[in-house]
Amino acid sequence: MSQPIGSLLWRSLRAYQVYGANTDVGKTIFSTILAKASKKRRPAENVWFLKPVSTGPLDEADDRHVSRFAQGVSTHCLHQFEKPISPHLAALSSAQETPSDSKVLRGIRDHFVECAQAGPGFAILETAGGVHSPGPSGASQADLYRPLRLPVVLIADSRLGGISSSISAYESLRIRGYDVASVMLFHDAVYQNDDYLRTYFDKQNIPSLSLPFPPERKESLLEDEKSLATYYEDVSSLPSMQDLLSRLDEQHENRINRLQSMPSRALECIWYPFTQHQLLSPERITTIDSASGDFFQTSTLPVKAIDNYTEDSSAPLLKPSFDGSASWWTQGLGHANPELVLAAAYAAGRYGHVMFAEAVHEPALSLAEMVLKYLNNPRMSRVFYTDNGSAGAEVAIKMGLRAARLRYGWSPSDNIEIIGLQGSYHGDTMGVMDCAEPSVYNEKVEWYQGRGFWFDYPKIKMANGSWVVEVPENLQQALGSGGVHSSLTDIFDVERREHGEEGQRYQQYIIDTLEKLQKQGRKFGALVMEPVILGAGGMLFADPLFQRMLVRVVRENPELFGTRSNETTTIEGTSNDWSGLPVIFDEVFTGFYRLGRASSSAFLGVHPDVSIHAKLLTGGVVPLCVTVASEPIFNAFDSAEKTDALLHGHSYTAHPIGCKVAEKSLQTMNELDKTGHWDVFKLDWIAPSNIEAESGDIKLHTEECPTGVWSVWSKDFVTSLSLHDKVRGVFAIGSVLAIELQDPSGGGYTSTASKELQSALMTGTLGDAGPRWDIHCRVLGNVLYLMASQMSTPETVREIEALVRASL
Amino acid sequence: MSQPIGSLLWRSLRAYQVYGANTDVGKTIFSTILAKASKKRRPAENVWFLKPVSTGPLDEADDRHVSRFAQGVSTHCLHQFEKPISPHLAALSSAQETPSDSKVLRGIRDHFVECAQAGPGFAILETAGGVHSPGPSGASQADLYRPLRLPVVLIADSRLGGISSSISAYESLRIRGYDVASVMLFHDAVYQNDDYLRTYFDKQNIPSLSLPFPPERKESLLEDEKSLATYYEDVSSLPSMQDLLSRLDEQHENRINRLQSMPSRALECIWYPFTQHQLLSPERITTIDSASGDFFQTSTLPVKAIDNYTEDSSAPLLKPSFDGSASWWTQGLGHANPELVLAAAYAAGRYGHVMFAEAVHEPALSLAEMVLKYLNNPRMSRVFYTDNGSAGAEVAIKMGLRAARLRYGWSPSDNIEIIGLQGSYHGDTMGVMDCAEPSVYNEKVEWYQGRGFWFDYPKIKMANGSWVVEVPENLQQALGSGGVHSSLTDIFDVERREHGEEGQRYQQYIIDTLEKLQKQGRKFGALVMEPVILGAGGMLFADPLFQRMLVRVVRENPELFGTRSNETTTIEGTSNDWSGLPVIFDEVFTGFYRLGRASSSAFLGVHPDVSIHAKLLTGGVVPLCVTVASEPIFNAFDSAEKTDALLHGHSYTAHPIGCKVAEKSLQTMNELDKTGHWDVFKLDWIAPSNIEAESGDIKLHTEECPTGVWSVWSKDFVTSLSLHDKVRGVFAIGSVLAIELQDPSGGGYTSTASKELQSALMTGTLGDAGPRWDIHCRVLGNVLYLMASQMSTPETVREIEALVRASL
Repeated sequence: MSQPIGSLLWRSLRAYQVYGANTDVGKTIFSTILAKASKKRRPAENVWFLKPVSTGPLDEADDRHVSRFAQGVSTHCLHQFEKPISPHLAALSSAQETPSDSKVLRGIRDHFVECAQAGPGFAILETAGGVHSPGPSGASQADLYRPLRLPVVLIADSRLGGISSSISAYESLRIRGYDVASVMLFHDAVYQNDDYLRTYFDKQNIPSLSLPFPPERKESLLEDEKSLATYYEDVSSLPSMQDLLSRLDEQHENRINRLQSMPSRALECIWYPFTQHQLLSPERITTIDSASGDFFQTSTLPVKAIDNYTEDSSAPLLKPSFDGSASWWTQGLGHANPELVLAAAYAAGRYGHVMFAEAVHEPALSLAEMVLKYLNNPRMSRVFYTDNGSAGAEVAIKMGLRAARLRYGWSPSDNIEIIGLQGSYHGDTMGVMDCAEPSVYNEKVEWYQGRGFWFDYPKIKMANGSWVVEVPENLQQALGSGGVHSSLTDIFDVERREHGEEGQRYQQYIIDTLEKLQKQGRKFGALVMEPVILGAGGMLFADPLFQRMLVRVVRENPELFGTRSNETTTIEGTSNDWSGLPVIFDEVFTGFYRLGRASSSAFLGVHPDVSIHAKLLTGGVVPLCVTVASEPIFNAFDSAEKTDALLHGHSYTAHPIGCKVAEKSLQTMNELDKTGHWDVFKLDWIAPSNIEAESGDIKLHTEECPTGVWSVWSKDFVTSLSLHDKVRGVFAIGSVLAIELQDPSGGGYTSTASKELQSALMTGTLGDAGPRWDIHCRVLGNVLYLMASQMSTPETVREIEALVRASL
Repeated sequence: MSQPIGSLLWRSLRAYQVYGANTDVGKTIFSTILAKASKKRRPAENVWFLKPVSTGPLDEADDRHVSRFAQGVSTHCLHQFEKPISPHLAALSSAQETPSDSKVLRGIRDHFVECAQAGPGFAILETAGGVHSPGPSGASQADLYRPLRLPVVLIADSRLGGISSSISAYESLRIRGYDVASVMLFHDAVYQNDDYLRTYFDKQNIPSLSLPFPPERKESLLEDEKSLATYYEDVSSLPSMQDLLSRLDEQHENRINRLQSMPSRALECIWYPFTQHQLLSPERITTIDSASGDFFQTSTLPVKAIDNYTEDSSAPLLKPSFDGSASWWTQGLGHANPELVLAAAYAAGRYGHVMFAEAVHEPALSLAEMVLKYLNNPRMSRVFYTDNGSAGAEVAIKMGLRAARLRYGWSPSDNIEIIGLQGSYHGDTMGVMDCAEPSVYNEKVEWYQGRGFWFDYPKIKMANGSWVVEVPENLQQALGSGGVHSSLTDIFDVERREHGEEGQRYQQYIIDTLEKLQKQGRKFGALVMEPVILGAGGMLFADPLFQRMLVRVVRENPELFGTRSNETTTIEGTSNDWSGLPVIFDEVFTGFYRLGRASSSAFLGVHPDVSIHAKLLTGGVVPLCVTVASEPIFNAFDSAEKTDALLHGHSYTAHPIGCKVAEKSLQTMNELDKTGHWDVFKLDWIAPSNIEAESGDIKLHTEECPTGVWSVWSKDFVTSLSLHDKVRGVFAIGSVLAIELQDPSGGGYTSTASKELQSALMTGTLGDAGPRWDIHCRVLGNVLYLMASQMSTPETVREIEALVRASL
C-alpha cells in the first residue's frame, strides 16, 4: 500500500461494511433493511449506501435496489461491470481499465469523507460476493478493504451448509483483525441456522438478528414491487431491528469513547518501558487502533479538554502514521501480514505451545535448519532458542565465557570480562547490561557492574556530501585521522582496506591495547559486538574495518588471552574451532536483512562463533530469539555431568508459533532477495561495475553482489541531508536511516536536539495533493532514525524523504 | 476430550479426510473418484470409504453411491440419520440416541485400526456439509475431528462465490492445525474458480486438480447410471488424477520419514535448554506431531535401527501422551484451544506487533486493567510488560532495589542484597540467577554471584497418610518440631496458626536472624519469594505460615533494614505504601489459578508490593510476562530526569498477540471459577462446613470460599500414595501433584530416583479396556510431578491416578 488510507471513523458518521458469508445470502436485502431502518430511526439524518464494485446488468444493480426500496437513502457505485461474474473476471472482460486496489480504496475514502462532511448519518459499504471474493485486481476483498477496518455487519447464510460458511467467513474476517459488529440472516424454519448461529455469536458477544425471508416473487412486476415494499416497511420497523441499530450506536459511541480515554487510562495503570513517566502526558501517547503494511492507524482525538476546542464531529478520528521505528526495529513484512498471521494461527492450532526439553516439533526443527542455512556461516551448527534478544545475549555470554574458561583453565569465580566497543547495547537483563560500559542507561541500576574493556573506534558517516571515516581525537595518533571515501561500498571493501595503512594501524593499536590489558592481569572470555551498527547505544556506525581487525587480532593472537589448559573439551584444530576468544556477534537488530543481507557479519567478511538473532526474525509478530553457535562452543558444555550443561531455559522455549512465523518470515525475505525485490533500491547505490556490460544483466542479489552496500533511502536524499546545516552527519544502509543533528550541548542520550524534527514529522502532512498522513518515529539523543520495512515501496520511501526535507 | 484418541497415521494405510468448502460441492463424487482411481493405481490394495455421520434417506446415502460406482471399495457408515438436514438437527429428531463426540471419534478410530490391520490401502473419511457443519452433538466438525488430524482433501466450490467459501474453509482448517494435502473441484468455464484457486494454492504449495462436471442427469435411471459410470471410469483414469495420487503418496512417505528422522536431525542442530546433550540420544527425544486438549500426539517410530526389529506396517505411528508437565507449567486451557487461537490470530491480523513506548493499544490496556482487577490486591496499580518470567523477575528486582535504596539513602554501588528462601528459582538471566543461593544450577556459571540471604524453612507434605509440617533438623530448636495437621486446609489456616505457638516461634526466629544480619552490616533491598511452592528449585512446599510471618516481620520491623533518608520520593504513609522492604512475589508458576486461585498470595493472606506473572497468563500459547507493582514502588522512579526512569524494555514489549491471548485466557479461567467448573474437584477436598446445611447449597468458588484448599488430584489418591513405601511424601494443590520418592542417596537435583517411575509412565498403557495412551512427564531430582490443565476432566485425572498407582 504505497498510498496509505486512514481507517474510516467519524463521530457523526456511523459507517459499516456489509460482508456476505457467501454470494446470494441477501446482502443487498439486508443493506436495504439497515438503510431503511436507520432512516426511520433518525429521519433527519443522512443515510448512505456505497457499492464500490458491482457486477451484473446495470438495471439489477444493488445500489438501484436500495434506492428504490429505501427512500431518502443516497446510493452510489464506484465501479460497475456488466458481466454477472466475479469482479476480477468481469473487470478483465470489460472495456474499462481495471481499477487498482488503491484507486478503489481512495474512491471509498473520498466518498465517505464527503458523507461525513454532510452531517450526521449512517453509511453502508456493501461488498460483492463472499468475504474472500476477489476485487477487480484479483485481491481478496477481505485483504483489500482491511486498511479501512470498518466494523462489519456479516450477512450469514441461512441455507443448508450455511452454518459452516458463516463461521468460516467470520473466522476469515477475524484473522484479519476485523471487528464484527453484528450478524444478520434469514430465518429458515427447516435449517434453523439462525438458532445455531445465535448461540455461537452470543458467545462472541456479537448481537445477531434473524429476519423473515422476503416474499416470493410475484408474477406481475407491480405486485412484486408492492409486496417487497411492504416487506421492507415491516421488517425495518420491527423492534428487534431498531434494537439492533441501538446496539450498533452504542458500540460506535463506546469505541470512540474508549479510543479517547485510552491514553489517560494507560497512564493510570501501565508502567512504560524506557520511560520517565514524569515527562509523559496523555497527549504524548500515540493511540494505535490497528496497523497494516507500514502504517499504524492512530487516533486524532484530543485526550483532554483543550481551551476553546470544539470538536469537528465530521473530522476523521483515525489517520495513518508511518511506523518509522519499524515498531522498535521488529517489522519486516508489514504489520498484520496475512501470510504471517495464517502461519502463526496454524502453529497455534496445531500445537499451542509444547514443551521443548528432550522434545522436538516441526517448526522448531525447520527453523533451526533454515537459520543455519541462511546464515551461511560455516562455523555454525547449533541453535539455542530464547524469547528475546536480551535473553539470547545472556545465553551467548554464558556460552562464550564457559568455552574460554575451560580452554584457559580458569575457575568460575575468576573475574572474567568481555571485550566490546563503547556504546554497545545487548539488552536490559543484568547479565548483558554488564556487557556494556558504564553509561546513563545503567549507572543508576543497583546491580550493574561493567565487566569488560570497551574499545573506542572510528565511525563512519556522510557529512557535507562525503562519506568519511571519523577517528576520535584521542585515537588519531594511533589510527591516523581517517578521511574521505569515494562511496559507502568503498568503506565496506574491508578486504582491500585491511592491507592498506589503515588496516595495519588498526591492527597494531588493537594488539598494543590488548597487551596492556594482559599485563594488568585481566582475563577476557569473549569478544562481543554488534556488527556495523551499535543500535540502542545511539545508532553508532562503526568503521567495519575496525570491527574486522578486532576479530582478526583476537583470533590470530590467542597468547594474549591465556594458555590452553588440559581441561579443554573442544576437539582442537577443527576448521570451525575458535581461536583467541569466542567471537559473539549481536545481530539482534542488524541481522536478517535489516541491513540488506541475511547476516550483518557478511559486511565485515568474518564469521562469528556465536551470533544472536531476534526482531526481524519473526517479521514483527511475536518475540523469539535464536542464539547460534559453533560445535566447538557447544562441546564446551559436553560432559557426563548434567551440571556442566548450559542450564538455561524458558517455559516457552521454541514456542511453535514463533518458530513457524520466523520460518515463513525468513523464507519470504530470502525470496525477496533472490527475486530482486530490492533491486530498484540497489540500482541507486551500487556501482555500474555490477552490471554486466555485454548482456546488460544486472546482478544485484546478495550472493552475486557480496560487496555492494545499498539502502532504501536514496543516495540523493542522504547526500542532501548531509549538506543541511542542522545536520552533523547521516548514515543509511539497508532499511535504516540515521540523522545525527547538530547539538551545541554535545549530543548523547540526554540530548533533545532531535525532538523538534521528531515533532514536525509526527504532526506532518504531505500537503494538499497527497493524503494526510504522518510519520511516527523515535529518537536516540540527537539522532533521529527512520526504518523502513522490507516491503516498503519506493513511493512511500520517497514521500517520507520529501517530508523529512520539508520538516528540517 | 476425556478419552484421548491417537491421530491416525500408519505406514501402510494412507488415510485422508474429505472436507467440503460448502455443502453440495461434490464431496461424494470426488470421494468416489479418489477411491476408484486408487483402486486402479494399486488393484491389489484395499480401498476404504467411511462416512462417520450421514443424513438423508438411506438409499441416497453417500457410502452406497461410492460402492456402486467404485467397485471393490469397502464402504461403511457409522451414524445414519434420515432427515436431510444438518446432523445436529437430524440427530435430535431421530429416535436414536445422539452419539457423543468421543463415541464418533472412537468409532472412526476402531474402523481405521481394522482397515490398517487388513493390509496396505487407501482410506477416505468423508465429512458432512462444510468444514464447520455441526456433528451430531452440535460441535463443529473441524473441531470434532481435529484430534485425528488426518491430512485433508478439500473439495472447493466451483460455483459463483466459491472462491470465497473455498479460501475461508481452507483458513478455518489451517487455524485448527490441519494440513491440506490437496484441493479438488469441478471446472466451471464461466466462473473459472479453479483457475484462481490453482494460483492461490500453488503459493501454499498445495496441489490442486480440477475435473469436469459429471454428466447431466438422464431421464432413464439406467441411462443415468451408465453415463455416470463412464464418467467415473474416465476421470479416475486421467493422468492428472493418477499424478495427484502419486503426490499424495509422496507426501505420506515424506511425512513419515520426516517424523522418523526428526530426533536425529534435532540432535544435529538444536542446543536444548537445561539439557546435558551427552546424556541425550535420539530415542530419548519425544517427537510431538501435534497437540490438542491435554494431549500431545507423539511419534511411536523407532528413531534408529533396532536389532531384530521388524516394523509392523499396520502399527499406529502416533499415540496420545498426556502432557504431564503442562508443557513446562504453561498450559491451562488445553493445547490449540480454538478460542485462544482465534484471539491470537485476531490480534495478529489487527496489529501484528506495534511498538509500545509512549503508545497504547487495546489489548495491552485491557489486559493491564484485567490483571489488576483479578489480582484483587489493593496495593497494586501498575503493570510492566516483558516477555518471560525471567525478564519479569529482573524488572521486579530492579523495582524493589531502587525503592529501598532511595528510601534508605544508599548508593547504587552499595552491595544491596535480597532476602529469599533456600531453593528459590526466578529464571536464568544473570540478575535473577543472583537471587538464588548457590546451587548446582549456578555454581559453574561464570558470572553468578549469589546476592542475598536465604532462609531455610519448614516444609509441608502428606507422609504416611497425614499432613505434616516438617521442620529441618537444625531449625527445630528455634521453630519446634512441626507436626501433624488434620487437613491441608488446616495448614493453610495461617491467620489462626499465626497466633499459636508456631507463629510466635517463626516470628522470633526471623527477627533474630535479621538482627544478626543487620549487625553484620548487610543491606537488603527486597524480600523475594515464590508463594506456596518453590517450583524449579525442586517442587518445595513451604509452610505458608513461615512465608506469611516473613512478610509480616519484614513489614513490621523497618528498623532492621535502614533509616528513611530525605531522598525518599514515595508519598509516605499511603495505605499502599511498603514498609521494611518491598515484598516481591514470584507467581510466575503459582499464579493465575495454577493452585486454584487467581493469585497464590491469597494462600498466605498477605499482599505483595510487586508480583510477577507469566506461564498460565497466556494459557500456554505465547510468551508474555507482567510485573505488577504498587504506586509507591512506581513513584521511586518518578523524577524530572529521564535516567531515573526504569530503563528496561524489550522490542516486543506488550505484543498485542500475547496480551489478547492473555485477556481471553484470564477471562475464561475467571469464568470457570465463577461458574463452578472445578466444584467437582473441590467437593473432594473442602470440608462440609462450606455446604450450607439448610439449602444444601455448595459455596465453593474462590470469593465465597477463601480458605478452602483443594486439588484436582483426589484426596484418596494422595493419601494412598503417601502410604507407599517408595514414597517419602506427596503434595497436591490446584492442578499440581508432586511425589517425592525415597532416595537412599539423599535426593536433590542430581538424584535419579524418580526416573524409574517416569519411564513407567512414559511407556505406560491403561490396559486392554482403555485406549493406549501414556503420560509425558518431567522430574526434578527425586520429585516426579504431574500437572493437569485447568480444563482436565475428572475422568482423565482419575485414569492417570490409576496408572500412577499401577506404575509405582
